[in-house]
Amino acid sequence: MSTTEFHAWWAERRQAGGFSVERIPFDALDSWNFEPRTGNLGHESGRFFTVEGLQVREGGAEIWSQPVINQPEIGILGIVVKEFDGVLHCLMQAKMEPGNANTIQLSPTVQATRSNYMKVHRGAGTRYLEYFTGPQRGQVLVDVLQSEQGAWFWRKRNRNMVVLATGDVPLYEDFCWLTMDQIRELTMVDNLVNMDARTVLSCMPFMLPDEAESAGRDAFHDALVRSYQYQAAEDLDTPGTAGRILSWFTEAKTRCDWSARLVPLADVTGWRRDEWEITDDAAENFRIIAVRVAAGTREVTRWTQPLLHPRGEGRAVFLVRSVGGVLRLLVRARPEYGLLDQVEMAPTVHLHPGQGLADIQESCLRDALLPGGGTTRYDHVLSEEGGRFHHALTRYQVIEVNEDFPLDVPPQLCWMTARQLTDLLRHGHYLNIEARSLLTCLLSLC
Amino acid sequence: MSTTEFHAWWAERRQAGGFSVERIPFDALDSWNFEPRTGNLGHESGRFFTVEGLQVREGGAEIWSQPVINQPEIGILGIVVKEFDGVLHCLMQAKMEPGNANTIQLSPTVQATRSNYMKVHRGAGTRYLEYFTGPQRGQVLVDVLQSEQGAWFWRKRNRNMVVLATGDVPLYEDFCWLTMDQIRELTMVDNLVNMDARTVLSCMPFMLPDEAESAGRDAFHDALVRSYQYQAAEDLDTPGTAGRILSWFTEAKTRCDWSARLVPLADVTGWRRDEWEITDDAAENFRIIAVRVAAGTREVTRWTQPLLHPRGEGRAVFLVRSVGGVLRLLVRARPEYGLLDQVEMAPTVHLHPGQGLADIQESCLRDALLPGGGTTRYDHVLSEEGGRFHHALTRYQVIEVNEDFPLDVPPQLCWMTARQLTDLLRHGHYLNIEARSLLTCLLSLC
Repeated sequence: MSTTEFHAWWAERRQAGGFSVERIPFDALDSWNFEPRTGNLGHESGRFFTVEGLQVREGGAEIWSQPVINQPEIGILGIVVKEFDGVLHCLMQAKMEPGNANTIQLSPTVQATRSNYMKVHRGAGTRYLEYFTGPQRGQVLVDVLQSEQGAWFWRKRNRNMVVLATGDVPLYEDFCWLTMDQIRELTMVDNLVNMDARTVLSCMPFMLPDEAESAGRDAFHDALVRSYQYQAAEDLDTPGTAGRILSWFTEAKTRCDWSARLVPLADVTGWRRDEWEITDDAAENFRIIAVRVAAGTREVTRWTQPLLHPRGEGRAVFLVRSVGGVLRLLVRARPEYGLLDQVEMAPTVHLHPGQGLADIQESCLRDALLPGGGTTRYDHVLSEEGGRFHHALTRYQVIEVNEDFPLDVPPQLCWMTARQLTDLLRHGHYLNIEARSLLTCLLSLC
Repeated sequence: MSTTEFHAWWAERRQAGGFSVERIPFDALDSWNFEPRTGNLGHESGRFFTVEGLQVREGGAEIWSQPVINQPEIGILGIVVKEFDGVLHCLMQAKMEPGNANTIQLSPTVQATRSNYMKVHRGAGTRYLEYFTGPQRGQVLVDVLQSEQGAWFWRKRNRNMVVLATGDVPLYEDFCWLTMDQIRELTMVDNLVNMDARTVLSCMPFMLPDEAESAGRDAFHDALVRSYQYQAAEDLDTPGTAGRILSWFTEAKTRCDWSARLVPLADVTGWRRDEWEITDDAAENFRIIAVRVAAGTREVTRWTQPLLHPRGEGRAVFLVRSVGGVLRLLVRARPEYGLLDQVEMAPTVHLHPGQGLADIQESCLRDALLPGGGTTRYDHVLSEEGGRFHHALTRYQVIEVNEDFPLDVPPQLCWMTARQLTDLLRHGHYLNIEARSLLTCLLSLC
């Protein structure tokens, strides 16, 4: 499928959907209820997810509380890959999610919660699931649990998988084969490649650029391609080795004096609930709302559910700098209350909806984000998980700073190569979801 | 210090202590109280640890609850190493812990909770702490967060560190320099090398045996030494690669349909509290008790605290088998309710106090543990954390099975080399505390 053919197919899929999403009051939710004792919002099956309270304590005293989405079960985000004429292709899906700003987005082959694929809702089976589970599955190239939004989810993680198919693979409607080059090109389109696709694509080390093929365009691209190869030698006197990065990360976790736990939603202070929404009193943070969905192409064609609705657009930026001809990313060890182990590696700057440059503590970073502060290499608005969030958009940017930008950075920051970050993606709980999204964006620049 | 000199010094340190530990009723605890609303037992500073409730849910319904020790702060378990005459030595400590069956045990250079070293209790400073924190610290060789007992702790982890000192290091009383060979020998003594020392010692890849030096004794020792070198090539058709091991581990986590959370201790069902203890109604599980401690050589010389008291001795066994001249360990992906990410890699068999062979589900494992079922290579009783547990003893065993033992094992088990396990110890949340203890025991067999 050429890229022109893709766009025609995409327009056709969008029309075929017949999707509708409408806001409803909580009491119009079907099978979802507020538990009287706790005020938690949950599904009567006990599955899917709940909206509960998150409480943060330091030295035994509460310092923060908020609503949070609790979804303990592990879903599968999986891409089937297969070689056609010697070129690896990814089987991608045109998938509708109720919270998407534009209904359908380009998604992994399989994107299913365990409740989904165990058919708690009695819908149709999940297409291609058998390639990821059970004895007949393909050759597993990637299989790792990765976290999702620590500001909105309670310790959520999904199973990111890539399997290589060798035999014939049937092609159902809503699915298409795309090469890595095509996907990189589509990553340059706003709100097209969805969050679940971006995280799986970031975990594919065998898709990284080859120095011999890609170098020689200009200084930035050469440094970028080298960044995918460069791994510091593991001797004690070299700065920036994998060992030092791990120690830096451990140190950042040790600095956290807080701990988080689930509490009843009714115990969250400073938030209130009416017929239509759960909101903080200042109306500055997100809201929990309810929607009714009709979708012809989903396992279940009509349902109601709660969604988390952020007020406005977030912004996530990696500052990058060439050092000795190798591009380094400025990585932040970022604490987030909903993360399983408190801290993960994050973009240099991540502003939540409603935050601005004034919320950035480090002045050198603020300056780099001002007009003229650096060279913008990537700048697109992409969507977060449309199955749980309503119109959650983030502006993702890669900005190159020049040699005036200090190499000596505060302890919460660390310079790393793309290769060093990619090596850590074999393991969970290192790179947060925004960092993984941006790594996929960065790869589109090669 | 020769080993003979060590034992003389050790006897002298034991006499010098002047330790006493006596059981007291809860209301004789100083600064520890049961919170009226929750029934949780905590220190009035809000620091150290609390005894709370742990609740496990599946599909929204409670399936298990128990008391649990919650200690969110991250402590340091650190060993200073230094070369003398070309041989690396570890600075070890004769440290008293109130729950130790024999008062003092061989401990890391530093073993301190954050409350401890931040001096919440206003005691003396922690010796050698400056080698692990702050700008003057030594060269960091190991720095990783590792978990502790998932059956008794709520998501506890400590910072396992090894630093290389280059300048002069003062030697205080209660401390001694030992070579790795000496420590291996002492690991063969019951209840001597403490849990904190064992976990740090397991994370030292630079101390692994060298094939050239160690081989040629007999088939078992040759296979053992090779096990520290062997790493399967990363191609798709080789079984037992690191990639396949990680996928096996991810799969095991996905099978967990339960989730755990903290609840008020008062909400734990089937347990009760009297003046002297918190116990399950059947008196089969552990008890929470209180003690008064006097210790001349600790930062604070008198205090009271709660302890968790298991009823009897646990047992942890690695079955090992030579495959193609390389020793493999049979590793279990073991779910434990208190673990941060639900599942870690554990010994082949781990029986809690009160459990017996009949509690082992897999018949081939039961048979191997019967008399004559295998060749016992290591068999010693070692202590668990004496700062939180009262007389918690575990019988650690390494048992070699012969070529009749099946290589094809159930999905919760996986054959791995010592090298593959050691490689994972760079990261936290892979090997549980019993597996790490047994790796240190295994190393003593080289």
